[in-house]
Amino acid sequence: MREERRATWARWGTPEQAKPLPEAVAGLLKQVFDVTPPGPATALDAVSAPAPALAEAALAALVAVVGAEHVGTEAAERALHASGKSTPDLFHQRTGELPELPAAVVAPADHEQVLAVLAVCAEHRLAVVPFGGGTSVVGGLAPEAVGYLTLDLRRLDRLVAVDPVSRTAVLQAGLPAPRADELLAEHGFTLGHVPQSYEYATIGGFAATRSSGQASAGYGRFDDMVVGLTVATPRGTISTGRAPASSAGPDLRRLFLGSEGAFGVITDVTVRVRPLAAERHYEGWRFESFADGVAAARRLAQDGPRPTVLRLSDEVETMLGAAGRGRGDGGCLLVVGHEGASVEHAVAQTAAVLRECGGQELGEEPGEQWAAHRFDAPYLRDALLDAGAFAETLETAAFWSALPGLYDAVREALFAALPVPSMVLCHVSHVYETGASLYFTVVTAYGDEPVARWQRAKAAANDAIIAAGGTISHHHGVGTEHRDWFAKEIGRLGVDVLRAVKRELDPARVLNPGILVP
Amino acid sequence: MREERRATWARWGTPEQAKPLPEAVAGLLKQVFDVTPPGPATALDAVSAPAPALAEAALAALVAVVGAEHVGTEAAERALHASGKSTPDLFHQRTGELPELPAAVVAPADHEQVLAVLAVCAEHRLAVVPFGGGTSVVGGLAPEAVGYLTLDLRRLDRLVAVDPVSRTAVLQAGLPAPRADELLAEHGFTLGHVPQSYEYATIGGFAATRSSGQASAGYGRFDDMVVGLTVATPRGTISTGRAPASSAGPDLRRLFLGSEGAFGVITDVTVRVRPLAAERHYEGWRFESFADGVAAARRLAQDGPRPTVLRLSDEVETMLGAAGRGRGDGGCLLVVGHEGASVEHAVAQTAAVLRECGGQELGEEPGEQWAAHRFDAPYLRDALLDAGAFAETLETAAFWSALPGLYDAVREALFAALPVPSMVLCHVSHVYETGASLYFTVVTAYGDEPVARWQRAKAAANDAIIAAGGTISHHHGVGTEHRDWFAKEIGRLGVDVLRAVKRELDPARVLNPGILVP
Repeated sequence: MREERRATWARWGTPEQAKPLPEAVAGLLKQVFDVTPPGPATALDAVSAPAPALAEAALAALVAVVGAEHVGTEAAERALHASGKSTPDLFHQRTGELPELPAAVVAPADHEQVLAVLAVCAEHRLAVVPFGGGTSVVGGLAPEAVGYLTLDLRRLDRLVAVDPVSRTAVLQAGLPAPRADELLAEHGFTLGHVPQSYEYATIGGFAATRSSGQASAGYGRFDDMVVGLTVATPRGTISTGRAPASSAGPDLRRLFLGSEGAFGVITDVTVRVRPLAAERHYEGWRFESFADGVAAARRLAQDGPRPTVLRLSDEVETMLGAAGRGRGDGGCLLVVGHEGASVEHAVAQTAAVLRECGGQELGEEPGEQWAAHRFDAPYLRDALLDAGAFAETLETAAFWSALPGLYDAVREALFAALPVPSMVLCHVSHVYETGASLYFTVVTAYGDEPVARWQRAKAAANDAIIAAGGTISHHHGVGTEHRDWFAKEIGRLGVDVLRAVKRELDPARVLNPGILVP
Repeated sequence: MREERRATWARWGTPEQAKPLPEAVAGLLKQVFDVTPPGPATALDAVSAPAPALAEAALAALVAVVGAEHVGTEAAERALHASGKSTPDLFHQRTGELPELPAAVVAPADHEQVLAVLAVCAEHRLAVVPFGGGTSVVGGLAPEAVGYLTLDLRRLDRLVAVDPVSRTAVLQAGLPAPRADELLAEHGFTLGHVPQSYEYATIGGFAATRSSGQASAGYGRFDDMVVGLTVATPRGTISTGRAPASSAGPDLRRLFLGSEGAFGVITDVTVRVRPLAAERHYEGWRFESFADGVAAARRLAQDGPRPTVLRLSDEVETMLGAAGRGRGDGGCLLVVGHEGASVEHAVAQTAAVLRECGGQELGEEPGEQWAAHRFDAPYLRDALLDAGAFAETLETAAFWSALPGLYDAVREALFAALPVPSMVLCHVSHVYETGASLYFTVVTAYGDEPVARWQRAKAAANDAIIAAGGTISHHHGVGTEHRDWFAKEIGRLGVDVLRAVKRELDPARVLNPGILVP
């Protein structure tokens, strides 16, 4: 087990990176919520787990494939792989009320070993959960199975090939994003894929969940970057992607992008890469209202110039963000970032458009502030939990014309289901020509049964999303938590199609049972 | 039956639009190939066909759904719907050696009637072929079935809705592209989707075959424009697309884009639309060699600015194009087109890049010439066929680094399989960051058995494409002609997945049997 992972028990990141709550926010919490810090979290080494229920023959077969040193069965390692990083996951880790642990954590060395592990699982009817960075916030690591195996992809961590002419790279699935960028940088390239989970998430996870990053306005979503995939299934290998585009039948790449381990294990992806940006320019703009800011963001998304980063906070999120930095002039903050070989023209053109849209220039400071703290949110969540406040997020996307209704509907559903007082923050996190995503953050007091209460509020928000025409997730994925609403979104026949694909590739039904497909 | 369609018997377009061969080309033909004009084509009204083998009960059920006036059974109408517009298709129409005709041509009025027709087909085990513009060049209208029905979508021809805020429009599947643009223009919008088949092809066909247009560098491929689909299947309706992007499972839209009627009948699509371009600028550039031109095209595709149209002819195609216009200064012609609200900056930036890449400015004339004749090729094919020369096309795509090898391999395969003398022309028709497409045109003398000989040459080219790492089709689709190579491209498991989807949605196996999935 990697020591680094050990440190992430019951929280995000490592203790060295922990962020204290800004004093103004801590004060606000105390004042608004009257929170009381809870007791300390259960220590990882105090976790007790029954001995793994793994048949001797299955264990022997797994050891034969990957070697004994790559089959972990001790309680701590199993506990660390039993859940992701949603707030309910952290609560369960803090209280020690863990879900069923995997019987073992198996780490194959390569694609062939992944195939062999899947064959063992199919033969022994042993459920298997692919594990990359372990950052799922939608129950993507919580299979509906009694007795299951975690397939840890950590050893598939190579940059396999770089094609500088085509600007593509083959990356193994277990490669953490920062390491992928480090390896690509040696060739002058970057992925440009920077989601909130960047520090821990892996390439395979990005593909399996159709991840979208903070710079996706400029670099594109991860599913748009992937030009090829290798997938190990219990029935063998599927390799897709011979060209950037094709009319040769349905795009099979898109069937595995977003398949969340239910159809197979993605072992490598071929991605489009971009040259390292020579220039960057981040800045902030103030809009009088969220509606004004949305109109400006839409104008840039539709008519250009398209910035690399475009992110608009609503009034509440702007206020809370500003509270930590001593500002408080109301309105809504729009962060605009440009990266590229030369950004001067785009920066000037963008400024002209934003001025026309009623924006007020705040200069580089708010943009740089945002960039400096772009990975802080999950650390702040830990600080909030430590202080006795419950914080969690959810997100959706819709076409532009549906966005105002969706915004209102989700807020109303959350306020109706949450205790008073609660705070609901929102930002537009990703923009497209035809629509955008909305990312909500909820902060409330623990109260009694915070997890159960959150689950009720989340269910109400999910209902509201589906009713208002939004998608149940724009970048977190389906997992187990969104599964029932995903089924509503794609309808009975849509579910039947996914089931048919799963039946074909996974006849023994061992791949991530209960994830994605009901 | 529409009179317009009647006029397209055994040729492309209508007689009024027929294009004579440029004199220089006609002379070249005579000189190089020593061609002899064949006899006149079989007249449509001379086509005799056995009475349709359609069970009384099935016919009655179809009439009950769509009304007797929308069930065509006369020989001429059936003959017109029995094939597409590949050169072998035209040959068969000219000689009167037709494939099996549909038993009837049924034209439902709306989505509900399409569902009902499919239900009748499933009940009576009657194969059904969706028909839009009838422009397939890959045998997409030639099912492997004894006794089948053509489902003509011509009555689904409405612009259902325009959302100017989201810049989306809902278009019915049977809408021909020019009519779609006419209707959208009333709202200030355009599709920007202009394939060679533009004058006749339909919206549903674009979606079912993953079409790519001449302006796709700027407007994107059709599959990238589609944000939602409604599909009628024998098991009911699938509706997809609630947002421009989502992480809610695999993108089901992509399973129906490119499904060629094998999974269901697309009845409407929601597409991203763009404002009508206020400005346009087309120009020509000369490059010393195809390799130099490819390098320049790649530079624009990867580093920008991205033109709306980017099309590079190789030396032979440049020479033949120039022959018709009295030029002949060697090298390769690159056509660059910009469309948008304001193109000046992009035109200037593009020129700077092309100059750096060794390009020689030819001014607007070659660009405007290309634009004025952008739909001529299929008319010229008719003129060639009339003159006794055989002309046909094929296309592929690959990553940039594979492109030179692919170009050589396809040409070698064609030359080895075709008689001497033959001409092989090529252009890069579409560019992406990571690769491009290659579009080949073959001209040779009729000789004996021109169709059989072409099929052997095409098979050799297809083998070469797969061996050189290209995709079997970049924008023509799979149909029956590419099916065996498509199976090689996606592998056994890929085929099994498509079969599983088809089995689920079409348990009676009536949808376009033999198309796409072997």
